[in-house]
Amino acid sequence: LPSMQTSRSKPCSCPSFRLREVASMYFTMIAVFLVILVVALQGSVPRGSDFPYKVPLDPQGLLELSWNVSYAEQAVNFQLLVRELRFGLLFGMSDRGEFENADLAVLWSDGHNSYFGDAWSDTKGQLHMDSQQDYQLLEARKAPEGLYLLFRRSFSTCDPKDYLIEDGTVHLIYGILEKPVRSLQAINISAIHRGLQRVQLLKPNITVPDLPSDMKTMEITAPDIVIPSQETTYWCYMAELPDGFSKHHIVMYEPVVTAGNEALVHHMEIFQCAAEFDSFPYYNGPCDSKMKPDRLNYCRHVLAAWAMGAQAFYYPEEAGLAFGGPGSSRYLRLEVHYHNPLVFKGRRDSSGIRLYYTATLRRYDAGIMELGLVYTPVMAIPPGESTFILTGYCTDKCTQLALPAAGIRIFASQLHTHLAGRKVVTVLARDGKELQVVNADGHYSPHFQEIRMLKEVVPVLPGDELITTCTYNTEDRSRATVGGFGILEEMCVNYVHYYPQTQLELCKSAVDAGYLRRYFNLVNRFNDEEVCMCPQVSIPQQFSSIPWNTFNRDVLKSLYGFAPISMHCNKSSAVQFPGEWEKQPLPTITERLR
Amino acid sequence: LPSMQTSRSKPCSCPSFRLREVASMYFTMIAVFLVILVVALQGSVPRGSDFPYKVPLDPQGLLELSWNVSYAEQAVNFQLLVRELRFGLLFGMSDRGEFENADLAVLWSDGHNSYFGDAWSDTKGQLHMDSQQDYQLLEARKAPEGLYLLFRRSFSTCDPKDYLIEDGTVHLIYGILEKPVRSLQAINISAIHRGLQRVQLLKPNITVPDLPSDMKTMEITAPDIVIPSQETTYWCYMAELPDGFSKHHIVMYEPVVTAGNEALVHHMEIFQCAAEFDSFPYYNGPCDSKMKPDRLNYCRHVLAAWAMGAQAFYYPEEAGLAFGGPGSSRYLRLEVHYHNPLVFKGRRDSSGIRLYYTATLRRYDAGIMELGLVYTPVMAIPPGESTFILTGYCTDKCTQLALPAAGIRIFASQLHTHLAGRKVVTVLARDGKELQVVNADGHYSPHFQEIRMLKEVVPVLPGDELITTCTYNTEDRSRATVGGFGILEEMCVNYVHYYPQTQLELCKSAVDAGYLRRYFNLVNRFNDEEVCMCPQVSIPQQFSSIPWNTFNRDVLKSLYGFAPISMHCNKSSAVQFPGEWEKQPLPTITERLR
Repeated sequence: LPSMQTSRSKPCSCPSFRLREVASMYFTMIAVFLVILVVALQGSVPRGSDFPYKVPLDPQGLLELSWNVSYAEQAVNFQLLVRELRFGLLFGMSDRGEFENADLAVLWSDGHNSYFGDAWSDTKGQLHMDSQQDYQLLEARKAPEGLYLLFRRSFSTCDPKDYLIEDGTVHLIYGILEKPVRSLQAINISAIHRGLQRVQLLKPNITVPDLPSDMKTMEITAPDIVIPSQETTYWCYMAELPDGFSKHHIVMYEPVVTAGNEALVHHMEIFQCAAEFDSFPYYNGPCDSKMKPDRLNYCRHVLAAWAMGAQAFYYPEEAGLAFGGPGSSRYLRLEVHYHNPLVFKGRRDSSGIRLYYTATLRRYDAGIMELGLVYTPVMAIPPGESTFILTGYCTDKCTQLALPAAGIRIFASQLHTHLAGRKVVTVLARDGKELQVVNADGHYSPHFQEIRMLKEVVPVLPGDELITTCTYNTEDRSRATVGGFGILEEMCVNYVHYYPQTQLELCKSAVDAGYLRRYFNLVNRFNDEEVCMCPQVSIPQQFSSIPWNTFNRDVLKSLYGFAPISMHCNKSSAVQFPGEWEKQPLPTITERLR
Repeated sequence: LPSMQTSRSKPCSCPSFRLREVASMYFTMIAVFLVILVVALQGSVPRGSDFPYKVPLDPQGLLELSWNVSYAEQAVNFQLLVRELRFGLLFGMSDRGEFENADLAVLWSDGHNSYFGDAWSDTKGQLHMDSQQDYQLLEARKAPEGLYLLFRRSFSTCDPKDYLIEDGTVHLIYGILEKPVRSLQAINISAIHRGLQRVQLLKPNITVPDLPSDMKTMEITAPDIVIPSQETTYWCYMAELPDGFSKHHIVMYEPVVTAGNEALVHHMEIFQCAAEFDSFPYYNGPCDSKMKPDRLNYCRHVLAAWAMGAQAFYYPEEAGLAFGGPGSSRYLRLEVHYHNPLVFKGRRDSSGIRLYYTATLRRYDAGIMELGLVYTPVMAIPPGESTFILTGYCTDKCTQLALPAAGIRIFASQLHTHLAGRKVVTVLARDGKELQVVNADGHYSPHFQEIRMLKEVVPVLPGDELITTCTYNTEDRSRATVGGFGILEEMCVNYVHYYPQTQLELCKSAVDAGYLRRYFNLVNRFNDEEVCMCPQVSIPQQFSSIPWNTFNRDVLKSLYGFAPISMHCNKSSAVQFPGEWEKQPLPTITERLR
């Protein structure tokens, strides 16, 4: 090339040289690929201790999944223990645990030979071999307890048939082949023994903080109870802190699960009771029992929460969760959710949570703040929607007033909706620019509400905005779903765990009620006066009289994206920070995250 | 595995066997890959004759691109002739021809060595080497006329930095390096000689139909004119068919471009004049000249159209375009668009179109039908929109009435909007299900309106629906853009070429005017009476008085997606098919194409 500028007639000799360069580059790449492959197949198969996360897939515990996450390689290594292998199994992932449109690794036998492959199921559940094999089998090893299958999957494979492994909930699915099958295509997915298990696959890679030397432990566990022989039980057990127990900091906690019951104990929470009552009655029984004393409803402040697949929860080195001492109740309520679909009888259980605490108080108390939407019927979801979005705001005005100058640090988050919730995300914005995701779950399930440690602590400064967006599905409903406390009403909440604790307990919003009235009026006129606008009619009644055509649906969305909001910037659920909180402008976002 | 069903204690020997199977599968795949690579690099480099499509990239013709398309391999093979190579060049693709967010192949020299690589530019136009190399260099060959670079690109590379090659317009970009550069990153993309060229890269792979033995040719070409020394000229030249010229069928046509002017002749069209006038004056001059007789405005019926990069246009074997004979004007108008950005002076030109026609009439006359939106201000686009969508319908009721029982066959299509148009697509639907795309252009440019032969002929039956959707960008406008004939008003049209010819010339829609009035009323009330609703005010004036907040924008979209339509199901622009065409329901689509 350089020779050509001086003389056009001089022959150019570089092209063929360059061609060889390119070729050798390709060969090198292939050679590297070979080396990696050989290493993967023969050398560095991960050891058992390399799989820190573990969850039983089926209620009998025949299939036990362990895994680890390599963020450097953007891949998950799975170890699947198959206790009683017959003619193979299916393991995979899908949007919400369905067996249609699923991404599957399949091990199957025709009675003579066995095969392993990456497959996918179509909208009818028919299996197909994947043209790109992305479940990479690393090892299959026989042990006394069963067959260990080790395999690996990249988060993202660039194959449109594959599931994209993201932060948040992953719906794992499994199936057990009890007869030989001629081929992958011959597997009748609806006829096999199968199920789903929800986990957070991409656990954060946190460094365990230094723990205090004077740390003590306290186990809040069920007192050797008999698990009821029914599919779902919420068990309530009241415990008590010692008399005169002074203020301590909880610095970590971990699950205590009775051996053999790993597949039955679905999630557990410890609640602290309200300080305004001097004493609470003892109770040990199902939470929905008529025998349960009403006062136990005042034990709702979360101290610790665990769900299947989760490990120990660590507070950041600078902070601890205060319990004990004056102004704090001595009474604790343990709630254990037993999931017993095979209706085992007579199983005894002493599961619970082990708290690690210290009297040497850390620098900061940790706090919990509620973000999202106010529980009010003005926020509603039309029926028959596959993806309807509602957004709750914690505005710059509120954080400006309520947060300390140095800001706060969010280190954990628990997302919450009722039954129609499908996705939840909270984003931090500063000066109209979205800075980062605080916590997101694109496959959120109301049946799997963990407290999740964040991959990185999120600093929030005065003047920042926290925007929480929930996506709902109301395809199975025939009437509008309004906001509220009822199980068939909806919520959109993110409980963020942060330090240092501030007075701000609630930072939530709802659409301005006056603008909602304009909407009802508009719908009324546009649709020839079909909606009853009589003033004595409640908001849920007005919503339920709307004819839900596409126009009325779309305009409700437009209203929620436009109308001013009413803010709850509160010290407790009833006490506001001083200021004007009605008819506030919606935050304007000029730069969105991708 | 099969052994395990009979006896659990029998050791399982299959896993290690299976592991080897998997490994050998990988090795085989690599071996195949190697063979393909070696063949690609040494063997089957395509010959010059293998590149049927050709276009100059720059106005001087220094860079000449030829290409072919392998639909089997889903790849494009490029041959770039660089006539005066200095220190390298950039070639690539981007959404609309911009140099930011572009996908580029770069050949560059630091004065000593030369390099070739796949690169991308960020939002600021800074170049980066792509982590995945998808422009595959096949050959670089010196010839007397310059350097030939042969390279290949898959349509889709699965690399998010890469451009996805799709049907429709592709904006090619080029740049010429006139100084040595230390590295790819050191290229200052805004300081180099550069430009863009629009082409339809994925030409349809049609089989050339048999041509009649009595075929004659007629050249309608400019009469050795001097191309004006200005950037843009539309040249008009009147031609005449011989006296008593009987009805013939045009069966194909091709461009005739004067040698040396390949980079200047941008596109050409032949229009037939209206039959109601006995004669038309002669004219040979710029179309926008004051000297041009007004009557030439009646020469608007397209007979043939060509744009840069296009080859010959063939009618299907069963059909021809009728011209000559009674009821058809003898007068033709040739329009040539010269694009002369370097303002060459004194260039002479005799370019035009060569028609191939036969007196042996084919079975069917071909026809042209207009789909999309009626030219009316009721269809409007708010200002400042990046992607606003308007949809025009050809309803089942109209096709039921106007099409023959055996249906029609669409074989070509010309998309049309004014300056705000960014995408156009027409979809065929039957019984509420979208069946196929008739023609789509996701990178549509109003400056590149070709008649495109379709990849496959689309059969349309009575009762089918043809839905044409246009996407507009009005970010540079401060007032609403309404539908209409003006260059700053908008259109959404697809001229489809089909056979057998029917009486249906227009099948288009617009929103019902009464519902638009409801919208103005609603906006008025919701926004506290800001819009002037006085009855004497025109629709464009009402649109221009709307305060364009997000609510008013969203509700206009909702209205267009909900309100009934007024149909134009016309024999000619003024004569309707009998029936009720006002307040028609919007077609309901229950199943969409992906």
